[in-house]
Amino acid sequence: MIEWVGAADPGRVHTEGRMARVALEDARDRVAELFGTRSRQVVFTSGATESINAATFGALASVGPGREVAMARVEHSAVREASERYAAGIEIVGVDGTGVIDLGAMTAAVRRPNVALAQCQWANHEVGTMQPVADVVAACREHRVLVHVDAAAAAGHVPISFDDVGADLMSLSAHKLGGPRGIGALLVRRGLRVPPLILGGSQERARRGGLEDVAAAAGFGAAASELRERLAEEAAVSRAYLAELRSAASAIPDVEIYGPVGEPDRLPHILCLGVGGVEAEPVLIGLDQAGVAAHSGSSCSSESLEPSPVLEAMGVDAEHSLRLSVGWSTAGADVERAARVLPQVIGRLRALMAGG
Amino acid sequence: MIEWVGAADPGRVHTEGRMARVALEDARDRVAELFGTRSRQVVFTSGATESINAATFGALASVGPGREVAMARVEHSAVREASERYAAGIEIVGVDGTGVIDLGAMTAAVRRPNVALAQCQWANHEVGTMQPVADVVAACREHRVLVHVDAAAAAGHVPISFDDVGADLMSLSAHKLGGPRGIGALLVRRGLRVPPLILGGSQERARRGGLEDVAAAAGFGAAASELRERLAEEAAVSRAYLAELRSAASAIPDVEIYGPVGEPDRLPHILCLGVGGVEAEPVLIGLDQAGVAAHSGSSCSSESLEPSPVLEAMGVDAEHSLRLSVGWSTAGADVERAARVLPQVIGRLRALMAGG
Repeated sequence: MIEWVGAADPGRVHTEGRMARVALEDARDRVAELFGTRSRQVVFTSGATESINAATFGALASVGPGREVAMARVEHSAVREASERYAAGIEIVGVDGTGVIDLGAMTAAVRRPNVALAQCQWANHEVGTMQPVADVVAACREHRVLVHVDAAAAAGHVPISFDDVGADLMSLSAHKLGGPRGIGALLVRRGLRVPPLILGGSQERARRGGLEDVAAAAGFGAAASELRERLAEEAAVSRAYLAELRSAASAIPDVEIYGPVGEPDRLPHILCLGVGGVEAEPVLIGLDQAGVAAHSGSSCSSESLEPSPVLEAMGVDAEHSLRLSVGWSTAGADVERAARVLPQVIGRLRALMAGG
Repeated sequence: MIEWVGAADPGRVHTEGRMARVALEDARDRVAELFGTRSRQVVFTSGATESINAATFGALASVGPGREVAMARVEHSAVREASERYAAGIEIVGVDGTGVIDLGAMTAAVRRPNVALAQCQWANHEVGTMQPVADVVAACREHRVLVHVDAAAAAGHVPISFDDVGADLMSLSAHKLGGPRGIGALLVRRGLRVPPLILGGSQERARRGGLEDVAAAAGFGAAASELRERLAEEAAVSRAYLAELRSAASAIPDVEIYGPVGEPDRLPHILCLGVGGVEAEPVLIGLDQAGVAAHSGSSCSSESLEPSPVLEAMGVDAEHSLRLSVGWSTAGADVERAARVLPQVIGRLRALMAGG
C-alpha cells in the first residue's frame, strides 16, 4: 500500500498513470479471484456500506419506479435503510430463532408481482448465522427478481463464489477480511447494467465516479491473495478460538449463545451472547478494563447502544447482548484472556447488582 | 497515517475504539481549522465526488420534490450529473470567455421560484478561473436558495473560509491538497440538516454511514495542518512555477492560454492551453516520453479524451486543450523540463503533420 499512497491518477495516459492503472487492475484481479468471478465484475467502492447503497439504488433504478424489496429484518441497517429509501415498499420476511431467513416466506415474497429485488445477506453480521443464499437466488431467478447479497460479514471467513451462487449484486468490505478501511467492492453480474450511485467521472467502467484509491485497492488485493491461499487455515484458527470462547461462555450461569450451534450453519469467527440480568455497556467496560475489546449490537450501530433489530427479529433478548469476534490479528493469548475474564466480569456485575 | 491503518472502530466503547475516535476528531479539527469552520460542520466522505453527490442529493431531498438547480456548464461532471439526477430541472447560467460565471444570470436564476439549489464552484478545475462565490452566496441568501460550493480544485491553493463565505454546503477532496486518496469532506452549515446519501450507521453524526477511515482522515488532517501554516508559501511557489510555464507557452506560435490572465482571478497552480492544429493526445504522449506528466480535459474524464464541456461553455476550442498543473511534489527541475520540452513536442508534431 505504501508504494501506492502517492499514486498518479490511473485514468491518465502518462507513464505514472499507466503504472497506477496496472496496480489497480492487479488488485482487481486478486479480489475477483478470491470471490470466484471475473475482474470486470468488480467495482471498487469506499466500503460495503457504499456498495449496499449503490446496489440497492442501482437495482431499483434499473427496473423503474414503484417496485418493492423482499428482505428479512436481520439485514444490516444499510440494507434496510437503503431499501426503505429506494423501494416503493418492503415485504418483510421472517427468520427463525437462530436468525435463519424463512425460505418459504422469501420464495412467496419474490413471487409477488411488484417485488423487483431481494436482499439476502450471506451470513449475519451480529450472530454469524449463515443464510440460504443459493436457495434464495434460485427462487429469485425463477421469478425474475434481482438479488443483492450483503457478504460483508462472511467474506474472507467462508468460501464465496459470486459466479457460482449466481447473485446479481454482492457487497464486500476489505477491512472485514484483513484489508484496509475505506475500500470495498460491489460485484455486478455479467450483463447486468445498473446506474451508479456516485456520479461524476467514467472510473470503474462508468460504474463509480471519483479518483480511484490505488493504495487501498492494493491492500484489498493483497489481503484477498493471502486469503485465497489461507482461508481454510484462517477459518480453522477462528473456529478453535471460538470454541474456547463458547465453552467459557457456556459455563457461566444464565448466559445464552445465540444463533445456530455449529458450522456450516454459522460463521467461524463471531459469537453472540445473551447475558441474563446485566446490561451490555457495563460488561463491555469491564471487559475493556481487563484488556478485551468486545462489542454490543450491530457492528455499525456506532455511537449508540440501541437494542439490536437482528436479535429482536430472532425473538431473543436484544438488551443484554454481547458480540465477541476473532480475526487475523487475534492471538491465542487474547482468547485465553477473554475466556478467563468474561465469567469474572459478569460475576462481579451480578454481585454488585445483588448487593445494590 | 501508518499508525492508524489498523485502527479500531471509533464507534466502540473499548480503549482501542476511543483512541481511534480521538485520532479521528483530531483530524476533523485540523480540517475544520484550514477551512475556517467548526469541527461539527465537517463530514468525512470518500472524496469530493461523493461529497458533491451527497450535497446535491441532500440539499434537494431537504426541500422536497420538483425543485430545480441553477448552475453553469463549467461545473465538474459530478455536479452536473448529480444535479441532472436529483433536480426536476436545471437553469443553465452562462460564463464569459475566461470561464467566469455570469453573476447577473445566476442572480436571475436563483430568483425563479422553483430554484432551490445553486451550484457554484470556488474555482474551475480545468482552467483555474476563480468564481464570484461570495456574490452568488449573497444572492442565494436573499432568495432563500441553498448553495453548494465545489471547492475541490481550489482548496489548499487559495484561502477558503466556509463560515465567512456563508455557503450551505462545500465539497472538498484531500488528494488535491497533498492528502491521501479515498477521503474528502462535505462541510455542512451550522443548523442545516440534509439526509445522508450513504445510509447505514450513525457515523459522522448520522450524516454518513460506514466505518470511518481513520488513517485516511489522519492524512487529510496532517495535510490540512501543514497548509494552515504554509498555504501562502506553497501558493507563491506554484505561482512562480506557473509563470515559467506560461512564459514558455506564450512563446509558442498559435498557443492560447485559456482563462483569466492572473491572480486573484485564477488559481495559482493550473494552466490550461489551447494548442492550435494539434490533438491533445499526441501532445500528452510526447510530453510523457520527455518525462512530463500532463493531462487533457477534465481531471475526472478518466478513460476518455472527450472534448471538455468547460471549454465548450467558454466558447473556446475544446479539442486541442492541454492542462498543466503543479503541486506540492513538483520540483523546479520538473517545471524547467516541462518549459523546455513543450515547444519541442508541439513543434515536432506540427512538423510531422505538415510533412504528412
